[in-house]
Amino acid sequence: MILAVDAMGGDHGPSEICRAALMACEEYHDLELALVGSEPLMTPLLEKAATSISRRISIVHTNERVEMNEHPTLAIRKKKNSSIRIAMEMVRSGEASGCVSAGNTGAVVAGGVLIVGRITGIDRPALGVALPTLNKYTFLLDVGANVRNKPFHLYQFAHMGNIYSKRILGVAEPQIALLSNGSEDIKGDDVVSGAKALIAKSALNFSGYVEGDDIPYSRADVVVCDGFSGNVVLKFAEGLMTASASLLKEEIGQRILPKVGMLFMLPMMKDLMARFHYEKHGGTPLLGVNGAVIKAHGRSKAPAIVSALRVARSFVGQNGVELIREELG
Amino acid sequence: MILAVDAMGGDHGPSEICRAALMACEEYHDLELALVGSEPLMTPLLEKAATSISRRISIVHTNERVEMNEHPTLAIRKKKNSSIRIAMEMVRSGEASGCVSAGNTGAVVAGGVLIVGRITGIDRPALGVALPTLNKYTFLLDVGANVRNKPFHLYQFAHMGNIYSKRILGVAEPQIALLSNGSEDIKGDDVVSGAKALIAKSALNFSGYVEGDDIPYSRADVVVCDGFSGNVVLKFAEGLMTASASLLKEEIGQRILPKVGMLFMLPMMKDLMARFHYEKHGGTPLLGVNGAVIKAHGRSKAPAIVSALRVARSFVGQNGVELIREELG
Repeated sequence: MILAVDAMGGDHGPSEICRAALMACEEYHDLELALVGSEPLMTPLLEKAATSISRRISIVHTNERVEMNEHPTLAIRKKKNSSIRIAMEMVRSGEASGCVSAGNTGAVVAGGVLIVGRITGIDRPALGVALPTLNKYTFLLDVGANVRNKPFHLYQFAHMGNIYSKRILGVAEPQIALLSNGSEDIKGDDVVSGAKALIAKSALNFSGYVEGDDIPYSRADVVVCDGFSGNVVLKFAEGLMTASASLLKEEIGQRILPKVGMLFMLPMMKDLMARFHYEKHGGTPLLGVNGAVIKAHGRSKAPAIVSALRVARSFVGQNGVELIREELG
Repeated sequence: MILAVDAMGGDHGPSEICRAALMACEEYHDLELALVGSEPLMTPLLEKAATSISRRISIVHTNERVEMNEHPTLAIRKKKNSSIRIAMEMVRSGEASGCVSAGNTGAVVAGGVLIVGRITGIDRPALGVALPTLNKYTFLLDVGANVRNKPFHLYQFAHMGNIYSKRILGVAEPQIALLSNGSEDIKGDDVVSGAKALIAKSALNFSGYVEGDDIPYSRADVVVCDGFSGNVVLKFAEGLMTASASLLKEEIGQRILPKVGMLFMLPMMKDLMARFHYEKHGGTPLLGVNGAVIKAHGRSKAPAIVSALRVARSFVGQNGVELIREELG
């Protein structure tokens, strides 16, 4: 399986991407990577690798990149040699089975729509994240491919979330819910209540509205919302967990007794933090486009990129795109 | 200072309200409470109190209550003897300086608008919460008085948040921000970007957009958003922290070593959890109405009701309503 990687995207650029490429190819012997980016920057970073690994990593040279603050659609249209656009073209042409980018989110979505193309029946793609929750994972979408949505978009997200939860995350009968400001029928705005009416008529296992606190309590397998709300929730979760962790560290620094306790508690605390540390789970699939397009967090270092490559590999291996096409057919 | 309390509202009804009334009157010697609810239910619960306390607690008898799933506006209009409506009428007539209710949120908002009345210049009241964050408190509004809002509503919320942060929370120069799906100028929907343009022209200390993770990191003193987003964020925060706490307990139960450590860690963990345990902070003021109206969480037990009474007492003591009128004048 060949995956294309946008090596110029994200906050850390080629160095972390090359490190991730070596790690991922060591982990998966069936994996081949095409790193799209500056050859002179990357060649020295890959030189020391064992031949068994380095022969599975190729470089597709370009120096052009889409910056984080650029207008996404304009950038994709104009920067024909940008690393993100070339990676997407490799997916469209079939040279690569999928691609990963830690670059400008808007450009990943625009590239998905304009270069890779939408699946018939999908008006807007959505970014989904499997959030670790109390007992399992809850798949939240959209977390930022869109800003606001119409009811039929949310209806399409519900179907894509259903198939992702069932086939990629392995949930037998995924329970689908809509994020709202209350669980009662009179709650929600026009968009959410419109989507509720549409989804209720479908064959999905639909449980109506859930509230914010239902997400961490795993009260649905798939939670559907517009890109604005999903983005706010995802980022808030990241911030709350990392802020809590740093507060914990600070408190420990101020007290002597807890330090003793900490020696015993450390392994458990690490597990717990890792479980809720959303960034580490890296890799949100852009669902609804004709190819496996995986967005990694802009701040991703090598382990998070590897995690995104794992998501891409699993999505391609399970024929994720084909499954969504079938679900909608 | 006399405060009216809706003794029939909330999940626990008169028993927790009476317990809270005794606790609050013991804490504050200047406090008088009028409990609006069933006299036969409450009298026995108050009997055992010392005279110095019980003489400051009176009962305003009614058996009618607004249920949690009733249509708010209809309920307020029709149920003229409901505990929540009587408490609000006491505020309007000046018999009480403020009121507290753990009942139906929509009915508290409807009562605020229809019975207590809006402050001139305010089109929609907002519920605000002081969220504990990394270094301080961030005042988030609206957390559920509204569903969706227009730009000028958010502009009014910004002004009310500013005065609350400055005068009630004691922040010298509150930094005001708008919650959005990214910090760049191109982010946000039409409502958020419209509000941004309005607030930028005001005299407020405005820092533009913040993202979800900026809230726990205390990157603004006041974060303004519509009621849908604020409600989702607040409930998600509550859920994430209580779910983490229960996960921690469960992990401890499964391991022997951490149990030893836990003896040392317990006091610190309790502090940390209390800090982020939003429910305990109880009491969200309904800003923009002509009286001190404080909403307590529906699940509130006595300590959370006491906390809401504390918020009411401080809001009345600081002339909160008058301050908002001046800010808008």
